[in-house]
Amino acid sequence: MKTVIIGSGNVAYHLAKAFTQNCYSPIQIFGRNEEALREISSENKIPYATDTLADADFYLICVKDSAVAEVSSLIKKENCLVAHTSGSLPKEVLLGNYRKACFYPLQTFSKKKTLNYSEIPFFIEAENALDFGFLKTLAETISTLVTEADFKKRKFVHLTAVFSCNFVNHLFARGKEISDAQDIPFDWFYPLIDETVRKIRTIDPKDAQTGPAIRNDARILAAHEALLADSSQLEIYKVMNESIKKMYDLK
Amino acid sequence: MKTVIIGSGNVAYHLAKAFTQNCYSPIQIFGRNEEALREISSENKIPYATDTLADADFYLICVKDSAVAEVSSLIKKENCLVAHTSGSLPKEVLLGNYRKACFYPLQTFSKKKTLNYSEIPFFIEAENALDFGFLKTLAETISTLVTEADFKKRKFVHLTAVFSCNFVNHLFARGKEISDAQDIPFDWFYPLIDETVRKIRTIDPKDAQTGPAIRNDARILAAHEALLADSSQLEIYKVMNESIKKMYDLK
Repeated sequence: MKTVIIGSGNVAYHLAKAFTQNCYSPIQIFGRNEEALREISSENKIPYATDTLADADFYLICVKDSAVAEVSSLIKKENCLVAHTSGSLPKEVLLGNYRKACFYPLQTFSKKKTLNYSEIPFFIEAENALDFGFLKTLAETISTLVTEADFKKRKFVHLTAVFSCNFVNHLFARGKEISDAQDIPFDWFYPLIDETVRKIRTIDPKDAQTGPAIRNDARILAAHEALLADSSQLEIYKVMNESIKKMYDLK
Repeated sequence: MKTVIIGSGNVAYHLAKAFTQNCYSPIQIFGRNEEALREISSENKIPYATDTLADADFYLICVKDSAVAEVSSLIKKENCLVAHTSGSLPKEVLLGNYRKACFYPLQTFSKKKTLNYSEIPFFIEAENALDFGFLKTLAETISTLVTEADFKKRKFVHLTAVFSCNFVNHLFARGKEISDAQDIPFDWFYPLIDETVRKIRTIDPKDAQTGPAIRNDARILAAHEALLADSSQLEIYKVMNESIKKMYDLK
C-alpha cells in the first residue's frame, strides 16, 4: 500500500518516525509548512511536497481537527483509503468518494520529545474488514495495543484523556505558578508526582486519594483559600475540593 | 538522641521504616491503635506502648493535623525536643515547655505501598541551630533532599503539593469514572499519563500544554460538555478549560 502522510505538525512528525523506524516507508509527506516538511523528510528519508499530492493507496491525514474536512477534499482519487488521526471526529467528516477510516493514536505529542511508540494505544475504525485489517496490521508494526473503536468510543477515550493528561498538565502548570512565586523549586515535587502516578497502577485512584479535602479538614481548606490570590487558582482549588467531597459523600 | 515516634498511621509507619532501614532505631512507638502499633513494632523491632510514653530526648509526632496539639500536650518532659510532621501547622501549635520543631516529609503515604525514601524531600524548622542540625542530620540519613523551611514556606509547599498530587489523583479518579462507564479499560491511559509526567522534566508544563482548550476548539469543548452527565465532572471540565484559556490569554 503506497502511503502518503498529510500534515507537518507533531502527529505527522511522530507517525512518520514511527513508520520508518518499523521499516514502513511512506512515499510522500505533503503539507504547506515547507520548513517543517523538510525536517520530517530529511529525518526519515521521505520525499516531501507542498503542491502536488502523490498518487497513493492510503492517505493519512495528520492535521488539526478543524482542518481535516478541508484537507480531505484535496484528495480527488476514488479508489483509495483515507484515514484521519483525530479522537473527536467521525470518519464521515472526510469529504471525498474514497473509503474512509480513522487511525487514532492516544498520546500527547511534542515534537522535540522522544517517545516509545510501542506503548501507544491505537484506535481504529474502517468501512470494511479489509481496510480495518490493513490499518490494524499497520498499527501493530508500531504498537502492542491496537483496538477497534467507533466514533462514540473514541469520543470517550478522548474525554478521559483530557482529564488524565491535559488537565493534569494544567495542574502542574498552576502548581508551578504557586511554587515559583515563593521561590520553591518545582523539581522538589517530582518524587511526589512520580509516586502519585505510580500508585494508581496498584491502587484504584478512588482508593488512593489523600489531602485535606478527603480528610474534610475545613481549617486547612480555608487557610489554603486565603493563600490563593489568583482567581483561576482559587476556582480550581474550590471546584476540585467540592468534587472530592462529593465523590466520598463528605458534608 | 533517644527517640519516640507518636502515632500509628501512614506517616508513622513509613518514618519508622525509613529510620530503621538506615540504622536509626527509635526506642518506642506510642499511640492508641494497638493493632497498627503492633504491625509497625514487629516490622521494625521497635517496642510499642499505648499507655506510658517512654522517657526520650526527641519525640516525633506523626498524627493528623487536628490531633497534633492534643497529642503534644501528653509530653510533660521539658528538657527535650518535640517535632510534628505537618506541612500546614506552625511549630507553636505544640503545647509544652520543650523545644519545638517541624520535620515535614513531602510525600503521599499509603501504608501498603513501598517507597524509595531517599528521594523524599524533608522540610525542617527548629528553635535553635543545635536542634536544626540534629534534625537535618537525621533527615539526611534517609533522604538526599533536606532543606530549611519556615511555616510560610511549608504552607506553600503543601499547597503546591495539593495541586500536583491530590488534585491530579482526583482527575485520575474522575477520568476512570468516565472510561469505566464506557467499558474502556483505564490502563490504556497509563502510557499517556506516564508521558504527561515525564514531559514536565524537560519542558515547562506551561509550554507542554495540549488539548482542546489551548487550541481554543469550541466545537470539541461543546461536544465534550454534552457527553458529561455528572455535575462534578462537568464543573471540573468547565473550570479547568477556563483556567487554561486564561493562562494563555485565549478569548
